[in-house]
Amino acid sequence: MNVEFINPFLESTINVIETMAFTKATPGKPTMKKGNKSWGPLSGIIGLASSELSGNLILSFDKPAILGIVSSMLGEEISEISPDVIDAVGELTNMVSGGAKAILSQKGHKFDMATPIMLVGKDVEITQLSKASVISIPFKTDKGEFVVEVTLHPVK
Amino acid sequence: MNVEFINPFLESTINVIETMAFTKATPGKPTMKKGNKSWGPLSGIIGLASSELSGNLILSFDKPAILGIVSSMLGEEISEISPDVIDAVGELTNMVSGGAKAILSQKGHKFDMATPIMLVGKDVEITQLSKASVISIPFKTDKGEFVVEVTLHPVK
Repeated sequence: MNVEFINPFLESTINVIETMAFTKATPGKPTMKKGNKSWGPLSGIIGLASSELSGNLILSFDKPAILGIVSSMLGEEISEISPDVIDAVGELTNMVSGGAKAILSQKGHKFDMATPIMLVGKDVEITQLSKASVISIPFKTDKGEFVVEVTLHPVK
Repeated sequence: MNVEFINPFLESTINVIETMAFTKATPGKPTMKKGNKSWGPLSGIIGLASSELSGNLILSFDKPAILGIVSSMLGEEISEISPDVIDAVGELTNMVSGGAKAILSQKGHKFDMATPIMLVGKDVEITQLSKASVISIPFKTDKGEFVVEVTLHPVK
């Protein structure tokens, strides 16, 4: 994957979590994803597509992180993964990809966004049909941790 | 969902399974998907996106169907869900969406395709963040059964 594509997703993640949940998300070192399991118990998946580019963005949260972030978003204490929490993960995934899309569009790399899908379950086996690598960026917050996985590659 | 969008996915499914696996797939009645679980033990998911449309296509196979279809595709007897079988589900999902894309494009409805994701596991909880309904089309073959789920709706 073009390394130029990584920073826009990283920046957009920090912006969205700060703006929506008043929470500072600190990125760790991006690595190539190993294995084929969902990272946390709740993940948002969104397809990225244009005539030039194809890929996916996945946000995967541990339980304390997503409950803390959604509690901040809604202004009330949420203690269980409810349909509202699941929807919030889809909305966050949509917003992060929208932010990255805006940044990359200014650099001449255009894509549109599919409909977010939310996956419940840790260690669910999901694999991407792509010869391109999946980049995984870990994030820490004062509430918990989450991971952003992104792949975006030229259409053959 | 625009009912005009259903037939191209149905037609493309029949064509792909016939062409790739020399197998007749007979569609049942399309219904609105109820619940939020993966239908079969192996599913392919692909995001559909343009500036006008957003959605997803999911092909979900029971084990006899996918083993029989991939055995026909590869010309050898496959008896277990291997990485090759998982990849084949991604390729089939890609081809079905590509065929539907070509048909819909001629009618003025354009979209591009994200990278296929393959999900292993029956009854995995997956939900789509969409107010639009998901249409489910059951298919029978002499090998087993599968389901095509499609949602495609205008971008707000």
